[in-house]
Amino acid sequence: MSKAYFYTAGCAVCNDAEKTMMGYLDQNKVDVEIVHFGENADRISEAETAGVESVPALVLDDQVYHINYGASMDDVKNG
Amino acid sequence: MSKAYFYTAGCAVCNDAEKTMMGYLDQNKVDVEIVHFGENADRISEAETAGVESVPALVLDDQVYHINYGASMDDVKNG
Repeated sequence: MSKAYFYTAGCAVCNDAEKTMMGYLDQNKVDVEIVHFGENADRISEAETAGVESVPALVLDDQVYHINYGASMDDVKNG
Repeated sequence: MSKAYFYTAGCAVCNDAEKTMMGYLDQNKVDVEIVHFGENADRISEAETAGVESVPALVLDDQVYHINYGASMDDVKNG
């Protein structure tokens, strides 16, 4: 079982990607934690360290998958 | 069962995203066809019609998910 992180800022692009990924990823193979920066701003640095440059993003097996483009991390930080 | 298309040009970014998506998407929920433009250039127009602007891209439930950025469709067309 792999652990993954889906980073979102709650934007429309984020929400659509979240719905699809959570709906179709195999939950027997990967445990995805959804991290919403609006509620967990303290985890922005964790995401940036992992290589997240924009949201939505999925971090899985130490790779960052930016899925479409909702907002930059600068946008996230400047709220 | 949803039908999905993973469009790739065989680039490193494409290959990594392909491996991850094929490894973690739930094959009981989605049937993913891999379309490699190097072997199926005749399907470029199909992808563009679906909204694919770059590869790698996953088209699922009529939505396009550009996963990171390997190459633009112009790059793909110009070989």
